[in-house]
Formats: sequence, C-alpha cells, structure tokens
Amino acid sequence: MKIGIVGGTGDIGEGIAMRLSPNHDVVIGSREEEKAVESSDVCYATVTKLGLPCSVSGYSNQDAIDRSDIVILAIPFRHVEPTLASLHGFENKLVISPVNPMEKRDFFVYTPPPEGSAALLIKRLLPQETRLCSAFNTVAANKWKALNETLDLAVPVCGDDSLSKATVLDLVRSIPGVKAYDAGPLAVSSMVECLTPLLLNIARFNKMKDVGVQFR
Amino acid sequence: MKIGIVGGTGDIGEGIAMRLSPNHDVVIGSREEEKAVESSDVCYATVTKLGLPCSVSGYSNQDAIDRSDIVILAIPFRHVEPTLASLHGFENKLVISPVNPMEKRDFFVYTPPPEGSAALLIKRLLPQETRLCSAFNTVAANKWKALNETLDLAVPVCGDDSLSKATVLDLVRSIPGVKAYDAGPLAVSSMVECLTPLLLNIARFNKMKDVGVQFR
Repeated sequence: MKIGIVGGTGDIGEGIAMRLSPNHDVVIGSREEEKAVESSDVCYATVTKLGLPCSVSGYSNQDAIDRSDIVILAIPFRHVEPTLASLHGFENKLVISPVNPMEKRDFFVYTPPPEGSAALLIKRLLPQETRLCSAFNTVAANKWKALNETLDLAVPVCGDDSLSKATVLDLVRSIPGVKAYDAGPLAVSSMVECLTPLLLNIARFNKMKDVGVQFR
Repeated sequence: MKIGIVGGTGDIGEGIAMRLSPNHDVVIGSREEEKAVESSDVCYATVTKLGLPCSVSGYSNQDAIDRSDIVILAIPFRHVEPTLASLHGFENKLVISPVNPMEKRDFFVYTPPPEGSAALLIKRLLPQETRLCSAFNTVAANKWKALNETLDLAVPVCGDDSLSKATVLDLVRSIPGVKAYDAGPLAVSSMVECLTPLLLNIARFNKMKDVGVQFR
C-alpha cells in the first residue's frame, strides 16, 4: 500500500517518512512540490546510507493524496481546516490523524476544538465515506529522524472501523521498535492527543529530550 | 513524615499503603475504623512476610488526617465532595490527589468536572493554605498489591508549590521500581488524570492486565 504524507516536509512528516519508507511506498506531499522533492531526496539519502531499502517520492499535497491508499495528515492543528478545504479526493482513502491541538504557554496545554478532539474535527471535515484513525500522535520528530537509533516506544491508535484500525496497527508495527496499541474508538482520541503536551511538559520539567511513551 | 490515606481500605489505597509502609509511617483511614484496622493488619502481614519492615496503623478518616503530614485522597471521584465536606483539619497538610474522574461506557471516558480536573475541584474545596499535588493517578491496584513483583512504571506529579512537589516526587521515588516525573502545574492535572481511562482502554482492547505507563 502507498502511504501519502500531507505536510510531509515538516519535522513529524519527515520522521514518519524515514521510518516507513524502508518497508512501504511513501509519497511525501507539500504545498510546494519542490520542497517535497527535496525532503524525498534527504529521506532517500538518509535511509539508503544505512543500507536499508527505500521507496520515497515527493509531490504536491494533492498528488500525494491521489497517489496513495493511506493518507497521513502531518500538519499543525491550526492548518487542519484550511488544508482540508484546499484538498479533495479523500473518499476512498484511509486517513490517519497525528494532529494534537495544543498551545505553548509557560507549559503545554491541550486545547481541543468544540468537537472534543482534532480527530473528531477532521471526521466532520472529511467526506462521510473516508475511514479515519488517529495514530502517530506521540512522534517525537528528532528521535524518529535519528535513524541510527532504534526506537523503543508505543503508538496508540484510535478508530471506529475495525478493519482500518487493524491496517493502521500493522502499519505502525512495521516500524522496528515501535509497539502499536488499540486505544479504542475515535471518541476517545482526545486522551491520545493530550499525551503529547503531557510528554512535552515532562521533557521540559525533567530536563529530558524527545520523550516517548511505553505501556506495560 | 506520616502519610495518611483517606479511603485507604479501597484497592488503590491498599496498593499505595503496601508500597509505602516499608519506608514510611502509614495511617490507613476509613469511614469505618474497624475496616481500616483490618486493612492495616493485612498490609502489615503482607509486607512483613516478605521480610520488609512495616509501619502501618488503621483509624477513622478524620484521625488519619489528624495524625499525618501528608494526606492521600484515595477515593472515587463521586465521593470527593461529600468526603471532603465531612472532614476537616487540612490547613497545614500536603494533600495528594490520585483521583480520576471517569465513566465506564463501552469504553472508559475521561469526565472532568467544570473546574477542568479532579485536582482543580479539590483545590476549590480545600482551605486556601492546603498544599495540593496530584500523583499516584495511574496506580493499577492489583500490580501495586502484588508486593512480590517489582514495579517498573512512572508516576507523573503535578503541583503549583515547588517544595511540596519535590516532597511528593521524593515520596514516589522511595518506592522501588517507580520513577517520578514533574508533569507541571496543577492546571495540567487533567492530562495526567486522563491517562488512567486511556490505560484502562488499552488494557481492554489489547487483552492486557494492570497496564502502567513509562516515559522514555
């Protein structure tokens, strides 16, 4: 299956692309196609330097959607509404939201929209037929981009369609060192999304870096 | 320092008492003093059977407060308001809230009060001088009560008074195998409280038991 990453030139998108491209066909999308091609070149160089196979290409966000079966929305929360309004063709896709609505004050605060979570807002904005899961919310970009380091962390996945959720759980599990957990329906996505401001606060107040989560 | 546990005969309270009583003076409180004495006897027998020292006693909730420096409110969320209304003497105490407002539907949902979290509700109900932290929110009672098993998990701590928070972090760290993390001010306690329904959902949907959290 082809994985398109809308906003794939951001830190989170690049991290996900580097970890998925050894085992999947990844299409990095961007508002500017040249930036996507650049990111794709960096990803290819980084991955193949480690002797791993790599399938990655760079296109516009719209092309990344059109060329993919699974679309990851690697965009900041404030870009969700304008970005989705400018794109189409989500009808038969499986969309993954790693989006965390949060604000940085003296510390990080979870700031969900009236729908209750980014995932539920995205569900309202996408066509009814689109299957939607939340996953990759807790990706610490630097750790994911440090390909020579093995990951040792957990990714919770929420979704209402069990087949789609199983597909996403398998996708997450294809990344060495990452455990995937079914965290329930989309309705409880807020509990996954607010892990990220929690982890950022823990990093900040305990002088740690790139903190991830594990369940045991 | 003496640690009083209001509601100490419940599962969470008993788990905390068993893990703290080898290194601290623990006073288990209950609405019925006889139940507290029973729990105290069970705790003493369980801890000393493993060759560990144990300091534990059982009293009424009010006596547990009066005899302690630190008071842990090991009560269900729905009991918070009536329990605090029936007790007094919190003025010079350090109070710890492990309380998680949540509901079990087909899955667990975080249901904070209008204040934003159990901790902020408790702050409103306690005297202004009382120092308050949240901690022990993610205690999986069975795992904490299985004293022959070493714990390997994290406890996030929130609070606004840095000296009190340092005291609570030290208290948590006195339990072998438990890492304590400063998770920020009381204002973000909701992000810690909703870890518990998340962990319960992960346990439920992944056929796991007594799931705890680790940060790394």
